[in-house]
Amino acid sequence: MSKLMKFSAVAGAATLTALPAMAQDAAADPVPYIMTTLLFLVGGFLVFWMAAGFAMLEAGLVRSKNVTTQLTKNIALFSIAAIMYWAVGFNLMYPGDFLIPGILGGFSITSLEPVGLAAADASLDYASVGSDFFFQLMFCATTASIVSGTLAERIKLWPFLIFVVVLTGFIYPIEASWQWGGGFLSEMGFSDFAGSTLVHAAGGFAALAGAIVLGARIGKYGPDGRVNPIVGSNMPLATLGTFILWLGWFGFNGGSQLAAGTVGDITDVSRIFANTNMAAAAGAITALILTQVTYGKVDLTMVLNGALAGLVSITAEPLAPSLFMALIIGGIGGAIVVYTVPLLDKLKIDDVVGAIPVHLIAGVWGTMAVPLTNSDTSFVTQAIGVISIGAFVFIVSFIVWTILKVTMGIRVSEEAEINGLDTSELGMEAYPEFTKG
Amino acid sequence: MSKLMKFSAVAGAATLTALPAMAQDAAADPVPYIMTTLLFLVGGFLVFWMAAGFAMLEAGLVRSKNVTTQLTKNIALFSIAAIMYWAVGFNLMYPGDFLIPGILGGFSITSLEPVGLAAADASLDYASVGSDFFFQLMFCATTASIVSGTLAERIKLWPFLIFVVVLTGFIYPIEASWQWGGGFLSEMGFSDFAGSTLVHAAGGFAALAGAIVLGARIGKYGPDGRVNPIVGSNMPLATLGTFILWLGWFGFNGGSQLAAGTVGDITDVSRIFANTNMAAAAGAITALILTQVTYGKVDLTMVLNGALAGLVSITAEPLAPSLFMALIIGGIGGAIVVYTVPLLDKLKIDDVVGAIPVHLIAGVWGTMAVPLTNSDTSFVTQAIGVISIGAFVFIVSFIVWTILKVTMGIRVSEEAEINGLDTSELGMEAYPEFTKG
Amino acid sequence: MSKLMKFSAVAGAATLTALPAMAQDAAADPVPYIMTTLLFLVGGFLVFWMAAGFAMLEAGLVRSKNVTTQLTKNIALFSIAAIMYWAVGFNLMYPGDFLIPGILGGFSITSLEPVGLAAADASLDYASVGSDFFFQLMFCATTASIVSGTLAERIKLWPFLIFVVVLTGFIYPIEASWQWGGGFLSEMGFSDFAGSTLVHAAGGFAALAGAIVLGARIGKYGPDGRVNPIVGSNMPLATLGTFILWLGWFGFNGGSQLAAGTVGDITDVSRIFANTNMAAAAGAITALILTQVTYGKVDLTMVLNGALAGLVSITAEPLAPSLFMALIIGGIGGAIVVYTVPLLDKLKIDDVVGAIPVHLIAGVWGTMAVPLTNSDTSFVTQAIGVISIGAFVFIVSFIVWTILKVTMGIRVSEEAEINGLDTSELGMEAYPEFTKG
Repeated sequence: MSKLMKFSAVAGAATLTALPAMAQDAAADPVPYIMTTLLFLVGGFLVFWMAAGFAMLEAGLVRSKNVTTQLTKNIALFSIAAIMYWAVGFNLMYPGDFLIPGILGGFSITSLEPVGLAAADASLDYASVGSDFFFQLMFCATTASIVSGTLAERIKLWPFLIFVVVLTGFIYPIEASWQWGGGFLSEMGFSDFAGSTLVHAAGGFAALAGAIVLGARIGKYGPDGRVNPIVGSNMPLATLGTFILWLGWFGFNGGSQLAAGTVGDITDVSRIFANTNMAAAAGAITALILTQVTYGKVDLTMVLNGALAGLVSITAEPLAPSLFMALIIGGIGGAIVVYTVPLLDKLKIDDVVGAIPVHLIAGVWGTMAVPLTNSDTSFVTQAIGVISIGAFVFIVSFIVWTILKVTMGIRVSEEAEINGLDTSELGMEAYPEFTKG
Repeated sequence: MSKLMKFSAVAGAATLTALPAMAQDAAADPVPYIMTTLLFLVGGFLVFWMAAGFAMLEAGLVRSKNVTTQLTKNIALFSIAAIMYWAVGFNLMYPGDFLIPGILGGFSITSLEPVGLAAADASLDYASVGSDFFFQLMFCATTASIVSGTLAERIKLWPFLIFVVVLTGFIYPIEASWQWGGGFLSEMGFSDFAGSTLVHAAGGFAALAGAIVLGARIGKYGPDGRVNPIVGSNMPLATLGTFILWLGWFGFNGGSQLAAGTVGDITDVSRIFANTNMAAAAGAITALILTQVTYGKVDLTMVLNGALAGLVSITAEPLAPSLFMALIIGGIGGAIVVYTVPLLDKLKIDDVVGAIPVHLIAGVWGTMAVPLTNSDTSFVTQAIGVISIGAFVFIVSFIVWTILKVTMGIRVSEEAEINGLDTSELGMEAYPEFTKG
Repeated sequence: MSKLMKFSAVAGAATLTALPAMAQDAAADPVPYIMTTLLFLVGGFLVFWMAAGFAMLEAGLVRSKNVTTQLTKNIALFSIAAIMYWAVGFNLMYPGDFLIPGILGGFSITSLEPVGLAAADASLDYASVGSDFFFQLMFCATTASIVSGTLAERIKLWPFLIFVVVLTGFIYPIEASWQWGGGFLSEMGFSDFAGSTLVHAAGGFAALAGAIVLGARIGKYGPDGRVNPIVGSNMPLATLGTFILWLGWFGFNGGSQLAAGTVGDITDVSRIFANTNMAAAAGAITALILTQVTYGKVDLTMVLNGALAGLVSITAEPLAPSLFMALIIGGIGGAIVVYTVPLLDKLKIDDVVGAIPVHLIAGVWGTMAVPLTNSDTSFVTQAIGVISIGAFVFIVSFIVWTILKVTMGIRVSEEAEINGLDTSELGMEAYPEFTKG
């Protein structure tokens, strides 16, 4: 998202008064407002759809004995995000006036415009608050979706959901306010168009903290240092989830143009769509070729994660690159997945679906790659942004996970883990008629 | 849907002539017409997508031996609705001139505008007939989708499809004409924005009549009054179906604004999107908490149905409520599901997927809740609307089901039911390689 | 797609200069450009979604031992198409100046408009290049998707992907340039609105050539001339895939109007949506009734393919027909599937998912039916178009498949085929916990 557009929109009324006369006249045309609002609604429902994508991807990549739990977590986390972002997050993220300048916004519940808003009362240079809230809450939910996959197959349901409350109500809105709310990172010139760091790496850091506090699944790492592959139960679901995420990403990146009502803006949105698609394709093909070359066989889950890593990589800057640069940026994202998934296993960090390579590592790569195509940015500032957000999210998440662990416990019993969380936690099998006796 | 907008659109040409000069000039701007038409096309494809959502939800909640039949019913019912709504329904529902004033429209086939319509020949204050037809037929199909889940696992295919012919060609269009076609309920001041009663409760009443005539599945209710739970075969499909329905509902409710071409209208659509999402989230979280508290374990199917009940609840009035009121309305919808599913079982009404609690009971709740936020409505008028439509749909459906039962039979043989409808009715298993031998 | 609109857009700048003054003024309004660009973006993401539809349909219709391979092929072919269409296809298909007049365009990489395009530099009578590229590449990918289903369960992964490189980079763009790029077929007056022949029959011809070169699956055709049915492993996935394709087709046909910014154009898009839906419904219902009448039982896979054949049939001319004619055209498409699937088996052409009846035969039917409703076309010209494209695609594909067969082999070993491609080719089962031991 363009910080300037977003920030000026937050401070909409004030800015409008200060505009020169010509811009005022231009603003009287309702078409840009209508089109940008429409962009948020369409982009928003596409990003909503990503919640289904994460649910299917994760349901496909866990064993069948943990599928119902994973589905429950996914629909619950989205619902929690929707409520917390209304109750706290939206205004904390776009504070207008910060409580602690550039760092911490204020706390208030979201309210929308009245029914039948008159054009004279609208921020005609931006979009309706309702559409903006709808669109932005989807990003908050996405951050939580990322965490859920990593911690699958051994975390208790309720502690996970409590973490989601904190993440979606506080952690995400605060770090995102540093950039998109006009905070200190945006003042510094950090650039993260649609959230490679603010959303994806942030989700990845929260997941990483959780994975460390929670520990690996039983049997994943043998005593002799051997890594035991645990295969997913349903490849069509994982593939469907990836296609859903790919589709949703057009809304994620395209909507983050935050404007669609001029020739320049809608053309930029088109450019973003084309680049986003190219980066995903390049990530998939890179993983396809590299797994063939490296392991002698194509690995579908790597191809899926390669596509997703391509998408994450282009998210920090989907507008400036040419299609060729989008191919390079996405392709490197795909390569990152192929080579960092084994690396995590060496560190005995058990990431069930590969969310840390895909969202954290490719997210950092995408953020650091912005200066390659956007000359208004610098590697130093990008690094400061990544480090600030990474450190904040990781540390706070680590503390929250630790508190949850100490107070209520975050891990199911060994017996429950072996029998599967669906039986032990929920009493409902995902496929009661299918699995081998 | 706003009755007034809809009705004035039906009587478009006449109304236009009567408009004052200023409005005439405004109507010369093609943008509102283009945007509202676009709203119907996008809203329409989203509601189309709900047909897939019902198919997946139901396929996930039945046993694997009945899945192919359930899928066949779903794609067939949508196709029948598409044809019947063209042949009869659309003009019966929006008659312009009623045969019996306010009660029964006329019978004629739908025709669209000519190719390359000139602006001078268009209803510039509304939208293209083609887009309106496309959008409205999806609501007709949704009504039929609701019925299919309740009657699963024991109904014969063809009698069900014949019922769909009657429902989509006659029952739905007639009752919907009472409100959206400018009939007697709209004259009285009844309000049902997107169809909590006209679509959801109506579908639920048709399903209830069918469930009573058809009887419960073998083994569902023990001789000792015990209720035997029959679990669904595929939770990821049920969850996917729910996410699809949630997504489609943005089109269902948002499109029912019936206008998107002014600042006020597109802002209202945004408000509807945000409220719709909030009600779904609140329904899901309420069911999550209540099943934990009541049964000691979270129940995923209740969470899914809770989200859907939240959506149904907000459908009668997704515009007027604040986000907080949307949360309350949707949350009560979720609670309704948790507590009425067992109630139906006490009455030995066997509703396989919980469609009656979700669509009928939450639909009535949503309709009765309209006066809480919309001061132009009254509880008495709302109750009259619910009772009129409920009585009409239930009685006519009951008669049709009974005729079908007496003439051709609506229930498969006991042996066929035990072996599964897929083998007996269709000769095609849904998962021939998976299920336990 | 209307050839004239598309061609004039390619030659946009030149044409614009030649326009009379009045049109110049009209072009200064940015709304048509914005709306048409939006049409391409929304239409494009819907057609993208069809890639997921093909993946699910095919994953559902193959046996579980070949599902991972089928999924891998589908995500890989889309990614290859995205890259090849950028590197070669787009400019080869819309050459502006042909290398060989009307027959072969030139070779150059796609580049998009600069960021923040000024209105003065835009083709205001059309849409952004980025959106056009995005939309058109989806059609290229669809052509490849069609091939993948036919050849399932016995083809090697890499030769298939190499064929996709040739198909998406060269075969499709060249034949499509004959019509949509302003080549010799468009000069002759051939008409194929959204690609019944250019996309669907072309994909079908490439699949047919492959099926002949590759041969049938082991056990499909008994020595005594008996045809052994091989049933798909997952009907919900096949149904989901069909619903996805149906949804995506609104973008496929609707977006092919190539304009949405006037009253006439958006009304035409509405008409296309309504006709597309009607043809699909008619195809499904026809197959439903015909399988009941012919075989005594409804066949779900035939109903699904009937819906798809209805969609393919209407694709050559979704605008001109009335809803009644759309019903007839789509219904005949559905009948074609029911009666040509057995015919192919008589010829011992093993088409795993029925793509040849659905895409090739119904595609030819749809193309030949254009003159029934569009008086600007003739049966002779339509036949010339079908024959030209069919012969070119079939012959070139046959040669490419043969070269691949001779050089690297295109078929897995007998043992690998019996054990399943997932184990032998990829080492990853789709459902490791489900299938019978």
